[in-house]
Amino acid sequence: MSMGRFIVFEGTEGVGKSTQIQLAQEWLATSHWFKTLSKNCPSLDSPILATREPGGTALGQELRQILLHSKEDIPAIAELFLYGADRHQHIETQIRPHLVAGGVVLCDRFTGSTVAYQGYGRGIDLHLIHQINDIATAGLQPDLTLWLDLPPAIGLERTRQRSSTGDRLENLDLAFHQRVYDGFRALANQSPEQVIPIDAQQNLGAIASDIQHHLNQKFHLWYGS
Amino acid sequence: MSMGRFIVFEGTEGVGKSTQIQLAQEWLATSHWFKTLSKNCPSLDSPILATREPGGTALGQELRQILLHSKEDIPAIAELFLYGADRHQHIETQIRPHLVAGGVVLCDRFTGSTVAYQGYGRGIDLHLIHQINDIATAGLQPDLTLWLDLPPAIGLERTRQRSSTGDRLENLDLAFHQRVYDGFRALANQSPEQVIPIDAQQNLGAIASDIQHHLNQKFHLWYGS
Repeated sequence: MSMGRFIVFEGTEGVGKSTQIQLAQEWLATSHWFKTLSKNCPSLDSPILATREPGGTALGQELRQILLHSKEDIPAIAELFLYGADRHQHIETQIRPHLVAGGVVLCDRFTGSTVAYQGYGRGIDLHLIHQINDIATAGLQPDLTLWLDLPPAIGLERTRQRSSTGDRLENLDLAFHQRVYDGFRALANQSPEQVIPIDAQQNLGAIASDIQHHLNQKFHLWYGS
Repeated sequence: MSMGRFIVFEGTEGVGKSTQIQLAQEWLATSHWFKTLSKNCPSLDSPILATREPGGTALGQELRQILLHSKEDIPAIAELFLYGADRHQHIETQIRPHLVAGGVVLCDRFTGSTVAYQGYGRGIDLHLIHQINDIATAGLQPDLTLWLDLPPAIGLERTRQRSSTGDRLENLDLAFHQRVYDGFRALANQSPEQVIPIDAQQNLGAIASDIQHHLNQKFHLWYGS
């Protein structure tokens, strides 16, 4: 038995992360990898944990409510601390135990979102962002990040069709979301081995198929054929 | 008009901070200082703001509920981030505006409590505590800290008489509260000019009188006679 694998899905609003995580989870459950993955984590009910930030724990649910729906103005640094609290709780109570038991974690957003939203979007000093991320994660890094790459104007249009009110982040202007997008692009450029861009302008099936292709490649590398 | 003054009351459970803040506020309002203080902050309704951490803002109220009454186990680092979020929000929306307008802030707990509870009590690395405190405060430090010095066994006995259930912190064992106490003592020893111990084994009136004595001294220094 070896340590499990931590796979993160990142992207701006409306890129379809949650749908793609569900499709990836379904695909893994019916693929030939499932037997290998299950063998690697005999103590777990399922080898695959699909989760998200913010909101992957009970505390996280409360913080998610505050972060996305607060009527009060939350200064950027306070927001950064709340994401840090959510992340640390999520890692220590959910992600790390699943990985230590040998399972695979599929996570909707992680430290990349903090760099993109709070760093590039809000303009908080990136050094500070990394400091908080390092404290929150205690060194845990994704084995693979799939960045769903979609021009922010298209993503925002999708979220607006989905809901007429929107949450605190969705309601920020396009210039903000463009900066966030630039942040994700910078991360992908800096770490081409760890952060893989997926063209999210394609239809759902084509996006899912690209993701499966990259997961297949990595799983061969990690678990043999 | 000059920048206001930031006065913090610190101490372990049951030392009577909130009562002493109320008494200090009442005394200031009727003392000869009130006219001087009011002149210094013409734009404020009252020159004195009495507030507390956690919970001095609407966000803080929600976080206070989580911090003191969560049924879920909150890892120490997540707790540290939540206190950081509460503090930053409190400073930026309440404390700093009042100080900038020239007022006096009386605050129940501040960074000293984080050093004592999360550092000495929970055992989080003090370097990390200072990092988070520095980010949360953006450099704001109290002009005076009054440390209500009471052996923790006596304080805990008082809080138990007050309530049969207690909150998350009150319910930790005496050894924890002794470490917290040692933390406050260390802070007082390190900064004798900034952190003044008040003997809180005395009766309420004698404690209030000691506090008035120190406030009088500082106010002479800050505002003349």
